[in-house]
Amino acid sequence: MLIVKKFGGTSVGNKERILNVAKRCIEEYQKGNDVVVVLSAMGKMTDELIAMAKDINPNPPKREMDMLLTTGEQTSVAMMAMAMHSMGIPAVSLNAFQVAMHTSHAYSNARIKRIDTDRIFNELEQRKIVIVTGFQGVDRYDNYTTLGRGGSDTTAVALAAALNADACEIYTDVDGVYTADPRKVTTAKKLQEITYDEMLEMATLGAGVLHNRSVELAKKHGVQLVVRSSLTKEEGTVVKERIMMPQAEISGVAGDDDAARISVTGLEDEPGVAFRLFNILAKKNINIDIILQSVGQNAKKDISFTVKEDDADLAVKTIKEHLPLGSYADVDATTDVAKVSIIGSGLIGHSGMAARMFEALYEVGVNIRMISTSEIRVTVIVDRADMVKAMNAAHEAFEL
Amino acid sequence: MLIVKKFGGTSVGNKERILNVAKRCIEEYQKGNDVVVVLSAMGKMTDELIAMAKDINPNPPKREMDMLLTTGEQTSVAMMAMAMHSMGIPAVSLNAFQVAMHTSHAYSNARIKRIDTDRIFNELEQRKIVIVTGFQGVDRYDNYTTLGRGGSDTTAVALAAALNADACEIYTDVDGVYTADPRKVTTAKKLQEITYDEMLEMATLGAGVLHNRSVELAKKHGVQLVVRSSLTKEEGTVVKERIMMPQAEISGVAGDDDAARISVTGLEDEPGVAFRLFNILAKKNINIDIILQSVGQNAKKDISFTVKEDDADLAVKTIKEHLPLGSYADVDATTDVAKVSIIGSGLIGHSGMAARMFEALYEVGVNIRMISTSEIRVTVIVDRADMVKAMNAAHEAFEL
Repeated sequence: MLIVKKFGGTSVGNKERILNVAKRCIEEYQKGNDVVVVLSAMGKMTDELIAMAKDINPNPPKREMDMLLTTGEQTSVAMMAMAMHSMGIPAVSLNAFQVAMHTSHAYSNARIKRIDTDRIFNELEQRKIVIVTGFQGVDRYDNYTTLGRGGSDTTAVALAAALNADACEIYTDVDGVYTADPRKVTTAKKLQEITYDEMLEMATLGAGVLHNRSVELAKKHGVQLVVRSSLTKEEGTVVKERIMMPQAEISGVAGDDDAARISVTGLEDEPGVAFRLFNILAKKNINIDIILQSVGQNAKKDISFTVKEDDADLAVKTIKEHLPLGSYADVDATTDVAKVSIIGSGLIGHSGMAARMFEALYEVGVNIRMISTSEIRVTVIVDRADMVKAMNAAHEAFEL
Repeated sequence: MLIVKKFGGTSVGNKERILNVAKRCIEEYQKGNDVVVVLSAMGKMTDELIAMAKDINPNPPKREMDMLLTTGEQTSVAMMAMAMHSMGIPAVSLNAFQVAMHTSHAYSNARIKRIDTDRIFNELEQRKIVIVTGFQGVDRYDNYTTLGRGGSDTTAVALAAALNADACEIYTDVDGVYTADPRKVTTAKKLQEITYDEMLEMATLGAGVLHNRSVELAKKHGVQLVVRSSLTKEEGTVVKERIMMPQAEISGVAGDDDAARISVTGLEDEPGVAFRLFNILAKKNINIDIILQSVGQNAKKDISFTVKEDDADLAVKTIKEHLPLGSYADVDATTDVAKVSIIGSGLIGHSGMAARMFEALYEVGVNIRMISTSEIRVTVIVDRADMVKAMNAAHEAFEL
C-alpha cells in the first residue's frame, strides 16, 4: 500500500511533536507500506516570517513573500528526515523543486498543475520514507509559489492523486469531522463518513477541518480522504463520494461569525441594477456570500448581502465611490451577524427540512435575518449573539 | 559595469543592517551599473539551525543538514529583495536552484562546477538588482549542497568569473586586509593591495579575512577582489595577481593559536617511517601543518608536527591504535603552542628575512620551537603565551 499522510503546523510544532509524528509514520512503514509524508511549516513559523517581512516592507512583493515562506516547510521536512534517521529509518526530504510540484504563476494563490512522480517513486523503491513540503510549488520559470490557505491539504490530495495512493490521511488537532463544532455544541458527535459535497459545504460555512480546494481536488480525482487526529489513534472521518453508513438526514450544523451584512436601500427597480452593484464589488475581489433582494418603498428595491467581516469597510467604500449618487438611497454595514447552516445529502428533495430548522430557531427565540439554500444546505443569517443558541437548537432538532 | 557584491551574515544581521546594505547596493545601481548581490544567512541563523538539528539528531545526515541550512540564505535574499522594493527599486532573489549553481555531490563541502548565467543576465537586462544565495548549490540529482566554511565568498568569486564581472567586492566587518590583526598588533596598517598568493598564506595562517578556496578560485580565473567594510566607505584592500604599489618587503604578520603540537619519539631511523606515520593520520582526515624531524638518542629519530587543536586527541589516539607497538617510544600532544608567520612576495630569494625575524624574536625573549618556510612565508611555532609578543616584534622588525 502507498499511503500519503499530511500533518499540519501544530503537529510538528516542537521537537517532541516531530518525534511523535516520525514514530507514527515509521509504524506505517514497518507494516511494509510505502509512506509519503506532507508537512506544513512548524507551529507559528509562517506567521513569524510574515511579521518579519512586513516589518521591513509593509507591502512586500508577492514573489519575494513566497520565496521567504517556502523556507518554512523546507525547515519542517529536513527536521522530520533527521528525526526519522535518529530512529534508524532511511528518510529523504524533498521540496517543491525537487519533487517537482508544478503550479500556475499566481504567487500566494497558485494552483497545482502537474506533479512529477519519478523522484518520489525512485526514493520509495529504495525503501525510504519520502517527506514532501506542503503548501509550495514552482511556476514554469522556476519561481517559488504558494498555494494559499489550507495549501498543504491540497498538496497531500494532489500527491495522492498523482501517485495513485491507496489512502490519503489528513492529520489535524481534532479527531475527525463533527456534526457541529464541539466547542459550541456540547452534544456534537463525530461522523464516521461524509460525502465530498457535504464536506465542501461544511468548509464553506466555517466548519473548516479541510480547505475547499483540497476537497474539490479529492472529489475530482476520487481520492478518498481520512481526517484524523495526530495525537490519538482514533479512527477519524472518511470523506468520499457516496457514504455507506446509515446516516441521519443531516450530517452537521455549521456556524460562522466571520460575516458582515451590507444593506443597499432605495435602488431603482429596473434590469441591470444587481449586475452593476456586484460587478463593482467583484472588481475589488470582494467575495459575496448570501444575497437577499426585497421590494422597498415607492417601487424601489433593497439589496442586502453578506461578506467576510474584513471586507465590510471596503465594500461600503467601493459602493460609495462607484455606484452613481442618486441611483440608491443609502448603504450601511453591520458586523453583528453570523451564519448558521445545516448540511446533508438528506436535504435533497426534502423541503420539510428547512421548515424544521426554522421552527427550531423560532422555538428558542432566534430571529432569522436572511435565508439561503442549496441542494444540500440551508443557511440562515442571525444576530451574532444568537449563533451558538441557533446551532444547538438545529443540532437538537435533527437529533444529531 | 557589472559588479558582484558579497555581504556576510553580520552585515545582514538585522533590519537596519539589511536596509543599509540595500541602500549601498542601490547607490551602485543608480550609477547605471548592473549589480549582483551575494548574501550569507542572517547573523547567527546558521548556528541556530545547526543547534536545532543537533537537538533532534546529534548526528544528522549531511544531506538533510544541507537541506535545512539552505533556508538561511534563502531567508536573507528574500528579505533583501523586499527591502529594495520598499525603496522603489526592482530586485529579484534567486536561490541555488533558480540560478542554477551546479556543484559536486559532497554534502557540507561541495565544490562549484558550473553556474548557469541565463536567468541572472535575463533579470539584469530588465534592470533588476539580482540577489543570490551564497554558500549553497545543487548537485546533479537536484539535492541541495553547501560549500563549507567561507562558502559565500566562493559563491561571489565563482559568480564574478561566470558573469565576467568587472569587479567583485567582498564586504566584511573589517575595512580591509591588515599587516597584522589590529586587535593584537596596535600598529597594524591596512594594505592597499596584496597578491593572491600572499592572501592565501595569510588565510592559511589564521588571518582569515577571506577563505582559501575563494582566493584560489579568484587566482585561477583572474577575478580581482576588493575586501572592504560594509559599515564605512573606506577604500579596502585589492587582492590581485601582481601588485603595483611599492610595498614593504613583507606584507603582513599572522598569528594563529588554533594549533597543537604532537611529538612522536624513538622512531626507527629507516626509510618509510614518516610515510607510515602520516599515512595513518591522512586516513582519518587529520590535516598536518608543520613537520619537524630531528635525530634523537640511540640512532632513533623524533618527529613533531602541528595539527588543529580539535584534531590533537584524535591524532594521538590514531597513532596509538595504528602505529605498531615497539616501532616508537612515546607520543604526546601539547596545545600550549601558537603559529606566528611573516608573509610577503619580498621574501623570494631573500634568505636574510628569516634571520631578521628570528633575531627580533630573540630580542624579546621568545623561544622558537619549530620552523617552517615557503617561498613567500616564514612560520615559527612558539609558546602560546608568547604569540602576541612575537607578532608585535616581527611587525616592528619589518617596519610595517
